[in-house]
Amino acid sequence: MASTNPARGMRDFLPADVRKREYVIGIIKEVYESYGFEPLETPAVENLETLTGKYGEEGNQLIFKILKRGEKLDLSGAAKESDLSDLALRYDLTVPLARVVANNKNELPKFFKRYQIQRVWRADRPARGRFREFYQCDVDCIGSDSLIVEAEIISAAGEILSKLGFVDFEIRINHRELLRSIVATAGIQNETDALVALDKLDKIGSDGVKNELLGRGISEVSADRFLDAIRSGSSNDDLDTVQRLCVGLPIRIDPSLARGLSYYTGTIMEIVLTEGDFKGSIGGGGRYDGLIGMFGKEQIPACGFSLGFERILVVMEERGMFPPEIADSTPADVMVTIWSSETIHESLRLAHELRSRGLRVTMYPEPDKLGKQIKYADSIRVPWVCVLGDSELADSTVTVKNMRTGDQQTIARDRAASAIQK
Amino acid sequence: MASTNPARGMRDFLPADVRKREYVIGIIKEVYESYGFEPLETPAVENLETLTGKYGEEGNQLIFKILKRGEKLDLSGAAKESDLSDLALRYDLTVPLARVVANNKNELPKFFKRYQIQRVWRADRPARGRFREFYQCDVDCIGSDSLIVEAEIISAAGEILSKLGFVDFEIRINHRELLRSIVATAGIQNETDALVALDKLDKIGSDGVKNELLGRGISEVSADRFLDAIRSGSSNDDLDTVQRLCVGLPIRIDPSLARGLSYYTGTIMEIVLTEGDFKGSIGGGGRYDGLIGMFGKEQIPACGFSLGFERILVVMEERGMFPPEIADSTPADVMVTIWSSETIHESLRLAHELRSRGLRVTMYPEPDKLGKQIKYADSIRVPWVCVLGDSELADSTVTVKNMRTGDQQTIARDRAASAIQK
Repeated sequence: MASTNPARGMRDFLPADVRKREYVIGIIKEVYESYGFEPLETPAVENLETLTGKYGEEGNQLIFKILKRGEKLDLSGAAKESDLSDLALRYDLTVPLARVVANNKNELPKFFKRYQIQRVWRADRPARGRFREFYQCDVDCIGSDSLIVEAEIISAAGEILSKLGFVDFEIRINHRELLRSIVATAGIQNETDALVALDKLDKIGSDGVKNELLGRGISEVSADRFLDAIRSGSSNDDLDTVQRLCVGLPIRIDPSLARGLSYYTGTIMEIVLTEGDFKGSIGGGGRYDGLIGMFGKEQIPACGFSLGFERILVVMEERGMFPPEIADSTPADVMVTIWSSETIHESLRLAHELRSRGLRVTMYPEPDKLGKQIKYADSIRVPWVCVLGDSELADSTVTVKNMRTGDQQTIARDRAASAIQK
Repeated sequence: MASTNPARGMRDFLPADVRKREYVIGIIKEVYESYGFEPLETPAVENLETLTGKYGEEGNQLIFKILKRGEKLDLSGAAKESDLSDLALRYDLTVPLARVVANNKNELPKFFKRYQIQRVWRADRPARGRFREFYQCDVDCIGSDSLIVEAEIISAAGEILSKLGFVDFEIRINHRELLRSIVATAGIQNETDALVALDKLDKIGSDGVKNELLGRGISEVSADRFLDAIRSGSSNDDLDTVQRLCVGLPIRIDPSLARGLSYYTGTIMEIVLTEGDFKGSIGGGGRYDGLIGMFGKEQIPACGFSLGFERILVVMEERGMFPPEIADSTPADVMVTIWSSETIHESLRLAHELRSRGLRVTMYPEPDKLGKQIKYADSIRVPWVCVLGDSELADSTVTVKNMRTGDQQTIARDRAASAIQK
């Protein structure tokens, strides 16, 4: 018998999970829409050549490739991996965005503001909190190099976190040109080495970063100068402007923010939680003016932010941040019972009446003994049960049972919905 | 330069497409939730062995298989296709449901009512209206053999179609046992042959079906008897009960309804559009008591319905059925312009004020000439533009321009949102 588990590193989302995920997605969409960002969806499957060479050697290894089919799959002779696959699963949402921008030049507005909340797949080694299928949640503004874009993207992300109930977040910003000049002034040749080491400052401290720099062959003098410059802090016009435009937000210029990614060209941003057991990044982004044009001839300015969707869900769960109607969701508001085979249609009609008043109503499907039906309602934690027996039918009444308190009352049938709703 | 098209048979959904799809999904979810169905999501990727052998030989060929990775991919010697793949893309939503039911026996309620609206992938030859990535939209009730389940599933589907604005749909039902007895009485040995032929009645007519039966080696006497029995019509207790419970719905017992699928065990149902250019099926389902238990030892009764999501979208588009706010969706309700570099933060603040009143507000990102900004607003069809110039700032006013009429008025800043909303 085959295993009935989901594939390794993948997850089934049962109803209670889906409701939590959709609650978070709903708030993200609402806020992004209110800023004029529009939804985009791209296929899970891309041509392999669209993805190849876009994620570095390490990323390349993590792409799920799809086997060619039918005659195209040539297994004669010594097949090479590159002969076997023509398609692959989406690895992120940025490369598909670049492809869509190139493919729809004439249909898209000059300033294309889009959000995209979709699954991506990476053949990573699964670990606690690391999955092979997970959601990314990206927002990007394409086509403008104005800092207004940065300000709006930061404001929207901050508003989402506030609406989700986070109070301990801080927005950190830095600038690629600042880092570049600090690296150069310190006499360090390899900028990437310096930024990768710097990225670990929170985890391994200043001494740790220094050791890492030395280990990468950077001289002690350079390493000290570099760390001194980071410590002494600095800003530039862009950062000052962004900070000034993000009025009322907990924003701070952080000269040590590097985010390890070499494609940022301007502002770099990160949002971190500052309190308790779940300190650390829950999203980041920045300006990357060189990337979106990868499928065309011109460079296209762009700035984006990626919320750590899976991380946000974990933290909200651990901190108990879901509102009660989401945290304690039930399959329905009311369960209508079946009195006898002869009155099934009357119970169905009652269910319809209650639905038309806005209630979520589930029918018990079988004419079992009433006690068994009510026990079932309890097991699925439906808060109300309606009983429509012969006497209720004769009187145009219904017996309404509050499953939380155990109270029940027999009331006029047309008052049942409002009795439940209050 | 690589192609920037989506992969063959796959689609990008630009914002206007996404909004239409989400509108339909929203109504489907709302109605299913009101019937007590709960959302389920499963991974796009399943273990290959979970899917293999579940879809017949033809289906098996259409499964997208994923290449093994790293050391697991052994290309030495003559590799067989079966050595190369361990994972595959979801082909439908029923097999994953069966797997989830088997894998979560103790967590799921006895009567598990779930809906699932997710993508599936099939390596079919793309054609008009046939894609390699498309949405399925399934609702199923697991665990009861009561006809109340059929009635609820039919009612919910009917309500969805009504809420979407369809008025010309008809629900046709039949019963597997009726078909079986007609086939047997006609002296036909191969039931599947008879049902596959019968399934084409709408397309090729009675004579066409007869020819097809003869072509499959069925005698003329049997073929005539079979078609006579279908024509003369018949029902049974189950169908009478279902019809009686679906009060107020356009439901009809159709002895010719076969749906070609061999796994139905009881009621068979289909919803068809009856008028105009888009006649034909937009959803179907039935009772299939043998399938959900495939990953376990016991048989589990089940009844389900699949709405033809992609078909519904095509018909709604062609018939112009989307409400205006969906059909003519815009990126935002208002665009706030930039007067000068010095007043950017004031424009951002105005945008915030308008958002806090429930408006979707996009910022023009650059301090261009006002005429250029308004021209851009027109190009993205935003219905309102706000201008906050030096005089407006001095007076605490804002100039609000109606882009549909061209009218503009300068009004108190705190009245701008309500002026736009009315």
